[in-house]
Amino acid sequence: MVDSAYTLFERQQTERGIDVEQVKEHLKALKIETPSWGYGDSGTRFKVFKQTGIPRNAFEKLEDAAQVHHFTGICPSVALHIPWDKVEDYAQLQQHASHLGLTLGAINPNLFQEDDYIFGSLCNLQPAIRRRAIDHVLECIEVARTVNSSIISLWLADGTNYPGQDSIRGRKHRLFESLQEIYQALAPEMRLLIEYKFFEPAFYHTDLGDWGMAYNMALKLGPQAEVLVDTGHHAQGTNVEQIVAYLLDEQKLGGFHFNSRKYADDDLIVGSVNPYELFLIFYQIREALADSQDAVRQNAANIAYMIDQSHCIEPKIPAMLRSVLNVQTYYAKALLINLAEVRQAQEQQDVLAAESAIREAFEFDVTPLLQVVREELGVPADPMRAYLKSDYGQRILARGKGGASW
Amino acid sequence: MVDSAYTLFERQQTERGIDVEQVKEHLKALKIETPSWGYGDSGTRFKVFKQTGIPRNAFEKLEDAAQVHHFTGICPSVALHIPWDKVEDYAQLQQHASHLGLTLGAINPNLFQEDDYIFGSLCNLQPAIRRRAIDHVLECIEVARTVNSSIISLWLADGTNYPGQDSIRGRKHRLFESLQEIYQALAPEMRLLIEYKFFEPAFYHTDLGDWGMAYNMALKLGPQAEVLVDTGHHAQGTNVEQIVAYLLDEQKLGGFHFNSRKYADDDLIVGSVNPYELFLIFYQIREALADSQDAVRQNAANIAYMIDQSHCIEPKIPAMLRSVLNVQTYYAKALLINLAEVRQAQEQQDVLAAESAIREAFEFDVTPLLQVVREELGVPADPMRAYLKSDYGQRILARGKGGASW
Amino acid sequence: MVDSAYTLFERQQTERGIDVEQVKEHLKALKIETPSWGYGDSGTRFKVFKQTGIPRNAFEKLEDAAQVHHFTGICPSVALHIPWDKVEDYAQLQQHASHLGLTLGAINPNLFQEDDYIFGSLCNLQPAIRRRAIDHVLECIEVARTVNSSIISLWLADGTNYPGQDSIRGRKHRLFESLQEIYQALAPEMRLLIEYKFFEPAFYHTDLGDWGMAYNMALKLGPQAEVLVDTGHHAQGTNVEQIVAYLLDEQKLGGFHFNSRKYADDDLIVGSVNPYELFLIFYQIREALADSQDAVRQNAANIAYMIDQSHCIEPKIPAMLRSVLNVQTYYAKALLINLAEVRQAQEQQDVLAAESAIREAFEFDVTPLLQVVREELGVPADPMRAYLKSDYGQRILARGKGGASW
Amino acid sequence: MVDSAYTLFERQQTERGIDVEQVKEHLKALKIETPSWGYGDSGTRFKVFKQTGIPRNAFEKLEDAAQVHHFTGICPSVALHIPWDKVEDYAQLQQHASHLGLTLGAINPNLFQEDDYIFGSLCNLQPAIRRRAIDHVLECIEVARTVNSSIISLWLADGTNYPGQDSIRGRKHRLFESLQEIYQALAPEMRLLIEYKFFEPAFYHTDLGDWGMAYNMALKLGPQAEVLVDTGHHAQGTNVEQIVAYLLDEQKLGGFHFNSRKYADDDLIVGSVNPYELFLIFYQIREALADSQDAVRQNAANIAYMIDQSHCIEPKIPAMLRSVLNVQTYYAKALLINLAEVRQAQEQQDVLAAESAIREAFEFDVTPLLQVVREELGVPADPMRAYLKSDYGQRILARGKGGASW
Repeated sequence: MVDSAYTLFERQQTERGIDVEQVKEHLKALKIETPSWGYGDSGTRFKVFKQTGIPRNAFEKLEDAAQVHHFTGICPSVALHIPWDKVEDYAQLQQHASHLGLTLGAINPNLFQEDDYIFGSLCNLQPAIRRRAIDHVLECIEVARTVNSSIISLWLADGTNYPGQDSIRGRKHRLFESLQEIYQALAPEMRLLIEYKFFEPAFYHTDLGDWGMAYNMALKLGPQAEVLVDTGHHAQGTNVEQIVAYLLDEQKLGGFHFNSRKYADDDLIVGSVNPYELFLIFYQIREALADSQDAVRQNAANIAYMIDQSHCIEPKIPAMLRSVLNVQTYYAKALLINLAEVRQAQEQQDVLAAESAIREAFEFDVTPLLQVVREELGVPADPMRAYLKSDYGQRILARGKGGASW
Repeated sequence: MVDSAYTLFERQQTERGIDVEQVKEHLKALKIETPSWGYGDSGTRFKVFKQTGIPRNAFEKLEDAAQVHHFTGICPSVALHIPWDKVEDYAQLQQHASHLGLTLGAINPNLFQEDDYIFGSLCNLQPAIRRRAIDHVLECIEVARTVNSSIISLWLADGTNYPGQDSIRGRKHRLFESLQEIYQALAPEMRLLIEYKFFEPAFYHTDLGDWGMAYNMALKLGPQAEVLVDTGHHAQGTNVEQIVAYLLDEQKLGGFHFNSRKYADDDLIVGSVNPYELFLIFYQIREALADSQDAVRQNAANIAYMIDQSHCIEPKIPAMLRSVLNVQTYYAKALLINLAEVRQAQEQQDVLAAESAIREAFEFDVTPLLQVVREELGVPADPMRAYLKSDYGQRILARGKGGASW
Repeated sequence: MVDSAYTLFERQQTERGIDVEQVKEHLKALKIETPSWGYGDSGTRFKVFKQTGIPRNAFEKLEDAAQVHHFTGICPSVALHIPWDKVEDYAQLQQHASHLGLTLGAINPNLFQEDDYIFGSLCNLQPAIRRRAIDHVLECIEVARTVNSSIISLWLADGTNYPGQDSIRGRKHRLFESLQEIYQALAPEMRLLIEYKFFEPAFYHTDLGDWGMAYNMALKLGPQAEVLVDTGHHAQGTNVEQIVAYLLDEQKLGGFHFNSRKYADDDLIVGSVNPYELFLIFYQIREALADSQDAVRQNAANIAYMIDQSHCIEPKIPAMLRSVLNVQTYYAKALLINLAEVRQAQEQQDVLAAESAIREAFEFDVTPLLQVVREELGVPADPMRAYLKSDYGQRILARGKGGASW
Repeated sequence: MVDSAYTLFERQQTERGIDVEQVKEHLKALKIETPSWGYGDSGTRFKVFKQTGIPRNAFEKLEDAAQVHHFTGICPSVALHIPWDKVEDYAQLQQHASHLGLTLGAINPNLFQEDDYIFGSLCNLQPAIRRRAIDHVLECIEVARTVNSSIISLWLADGTNYPGQDSIRGRKHRLFESLQEIYQALAPEMRLLIEYKFFEPAFYHTDLGDWGMAYNMALKLGPQAEVLVDTGHHAQGTNVEQIVAYLLDEQKLGGFHFNSRKYADDDLIVGSVNPYELFLIFYQIREALADSQDAVRQNAANIAYMIDQSHCIEPKIPAMLRSVLNVQTYYAKALLINLAEVRQAQEQQDVLAAESAIREAFEFDVTPLLQVVREELGVPADPMRAYLKSDYGQRILARGKGGASW
């Protein structure tokens, strides 16, 4: 049935003016980085439900990540979190990754789990604590250098819980000073991705509370600093795709932390709450990829796509597979947008035709397309089914309970 | 200066037509229950910052709670959380409380920290898990009987994270069945307070997601079931005081879990984010206390006022003192509303005069009033300062780090 | 291509265990009522952009509505709004409808556009204004009787803008008293659908602010009173499908006012913001249609599906067509959910399999299915294209500018 | 009683280390601009309730505004909205203002009420419409020149209602180009204040949707462009005072449009929903006024304080008085913050002491202080009472119904 379905799909899309081969090329070029911590136990403040078979260290996390790449063919790199993935010998870790067919991706410093950071890290009033935090990031830059990673992905939990607890502007100055030192330490090919978050763990103000604040910092730091968009880190109602478009236009979009949310930073499987939003984000990226300005096209081509989720009740590897497949699915749909048709409708200010041209692409079933792409990539047409049929999930049960968690 | 300030205050209020003695009587009658878990370590999913001096068991928690009562005179009871406060001999715990001048208050079952509860407790599809959860609540009812508590305070973390994960209506049926068995086990003088919550730890649907669902359950269970309003458990923008008024009017308001929030269920010190909202809640209660219907007055008089907060970065005892003092402050202000004046403005449909009559009461500085009330209650005029001057905070440091947490 | 696409679709669904003929029956049974006011000019508080060709009276509105039915085959009834659609002779209006192949549907009283209603209608403190409001609803019941409509659809704009402006509980009493009189006047076959709304035009409290309040009223009024869910009338993040499930389970779901929103009550084309939510609402309905309880099945079968939108910038008839087609599309997708598969996954508490079983149905392209259904209904396979090709849009331009608006 | 109350207040504050004379100086320096349109009829999309006595033209609006200044002494300027306040001879209007003791303040172009603007004004795809919109703003700059106003206050309603309706980045480019031409036309002493808004009237994306977008534009335009913060134009939960602090720190805070909201852009009387937020905004300003950096102090000193409300059900002049008095009240409270005490607590990272130092100032009753300040300004101690006792409200009834509205 795949064959006839794909034949039909191809004919249909060709008639719409879509170059299916080009779509396939784009899909094969898509790379999604999975995070080492996504394979560990995680939960809410109320409870971490420990699962059996969780990797016990960074090496085992890479093994699980390798499964995701093995079955999808599009997840060749893994993000690390230091110190969660701290090892004595990073070269050895990289070698392990390499044997598994992986590379090591973004290095994520941890600036929220030391007792010292109760009142902040890079923004802390105490110079000694800022020093410690800066040094930790510098150490992460060293790790990046060692493992050939070019991305430092910085999420700052800093903020306050009560009005007056600290000076908002004072903290802004300290943050910028800290970031400047960090920025200076970057190797020329490295990028510092600055993440913002609406709230949590801080409940009154968050030092990098929205894209505007992250953008302001990145702008003042220089071209190697860019903004990281975590799809779950916004106020209710925020038009995330507009922020994406804005950052692309300013050439300051560094990458994504993909996940879904209905309420706060729920960290659910990306695409599971409002898949249309994910599709619309990719529409903005696709438009930028076809832009007339070199700089915009270049930014769009260099976006770091990363998953950042917290699977509380799901089995980890299948949850990660689902996430990756969802991103692939909605990217594929966005590639079916007939941009020429959209532009024509826009030029005629025909609201319904323009809206329709977008939504129409969303309505197509891209399963046959993805099946063919996967076959051409040499991976199973249905990665989830293939993984579930494999014995990997059974084998790791031998690890027992009590693996890595955060 | 207190004297002259109070003299001035009394004169001013008397001229406004406020019966200051009656206000003082109301203030002396206010009782606020503090939660045992509010004295332990707590935090966010990212980090629990362990403090030195945290009580190591239920007995020491009561000792800390006794301090709050000692300095405020209005916190004579303490809510327990089972199993966090599980002891071999509850009679001994009660005796300890009694020696400290305290009683034991609401008993809070814990239906979210067992591995079994990963997919719910009272709503779980598996009968054995529901059985376990029901049995736990029945055990709590026994504890209540033993310690002479008349309130079972039920917060249900049950819910799902994804569409389709479980049948919403199926869970509703199971929940009702579970609650019926629990309700049957209540002693005649006991009340079952049913708490609702917008979200967290469930991120797709929460089985008791709003007041309407809790009300629906309470209504079908019977007169001993009432709704518990946690001030932080609502969608952004929700008019909480309207829900309070509605429940009072239906004689189904069981009590409060007080705390503040700016974003989600932030569990900050009550009154620290939008104190006007707390005041407006008390305005509805005050209006109900003066209602012409006996049943409404009675409901208003029997509200259980309880604190439920999660102090992540604050020293616990002072944070609890601040919370209690804030509730007292905004209740005092609500008592200064000239209801006759409000009603007159309402009858004339004079929007600005009515609004003004409410806000005016909020603007008064009730410090002199509270100082006099405290003196008459035999506690320090400034409880916070008195506590900070005492050596209690120093003495408990001997407990070391690593006390109770949740 | 339709043929081969449908053949493929049918085979695919049959292999999944879906009874395609039954799906088609369900789709043919779906009826969506369009609102007369949806064909008139509308806008925001800032501006109503007047379009050319807007119907000038109720008769012309019906003519436009007939187009929507003509091209879709599933919109045989039209909701009226009194006094916007006030005519001297309702029998004549009904005859006009009948000639157009239409019936007259829900009668919507207007309780917000008289100067008298500045402080409310059914809740107003002034008995004379309540009298006027009640009388207006009674008049609408008479209209319903005349035009053979069995639904009174009541949206109440009542509320206050400031704390203290009026007594929340006093208004609740007045509202119930007013509704009782209205309820008494219903003919036995009539239903009173009570709509709630989070806010707007009231900005402090809305007398029917959420489903719990509407449910409370409906419950106390009796079996002919039910709740009306307007999809845009909720706080951000609200799980609307859970409310739908809850009301179905209590047999109190009267109907829907469909529209989309990203922010407040945006009244956009239904399905244009988060189509997955619309699909999930239909999943709950579909589950109820297959319930073991007669009463639940019956409620699900009697839901009144109505559009209620405010097309500010869109041409009206195509916007209505798009809305109707979207509802049809997402209902069709919900019909492709394999309930047995979902239940099996639920019973195994297999979160990912359950979620997947739901989402999978959403991913299918139902275009071939809908094309065949439409052919069998005797309407064009692509109603939008057919309408745009017709000269109706051109012909009505003769009406000029300045037609009906609200 | 005022005397003794003030004596007590002064003693109390002096003992706290507050320089009451300095506080009074600050209060006397506070100027709040009221908007001409705030005196006209306004409403929601559902209904504009027409009041009797509404000014019929710009001249009469100034007369009403003069009352507000007459009774408060702090509202010497009035913002104009073109074309709502269009007159043949602006010099004559200015002369009228001058006779009334007023000056003309910010000039507000109207870019949303022409039929042409259905798809935007400065962002519109059609060059001719952008031209018209730019020309209108240039005309407003001319008006500003004529009436000696130095502020152009630009609110842009531009946005889209549906994904794909127009190119987000294309609109951004057009907007910047349009703003550049406008910026070039500014006289050297003029400031262009760029307002942002979360949503409404656009419901999918708003071209200037948050402070980050307005800041981005202002930064690229140059030093005469600044950001205007309308307190009601944010997503739920947004920390507005943090944005204020951020903009002050970047010297890009142009001014405020004050109003209150509980839900969307409710445009209620400022300070009526969450007065603590208004106070916290002033805390940030007060801190900036005392900053060590000249540029920050200078920005804080040059903030344009403007009211922008939509009084739907309130009598206009008293509503404006209440707004002005509220701003004055919460500014006064912020002036009572003991900054040295706050800073000391911050340096000791004493969360509760710092929070307390802020909230304490909020708790003071500033009525006696304001009464004395008003006496010294030569206005009534109770401006609202004085106005209500005057016959102005009666006299204007002669204007009848049907005055100016928007």
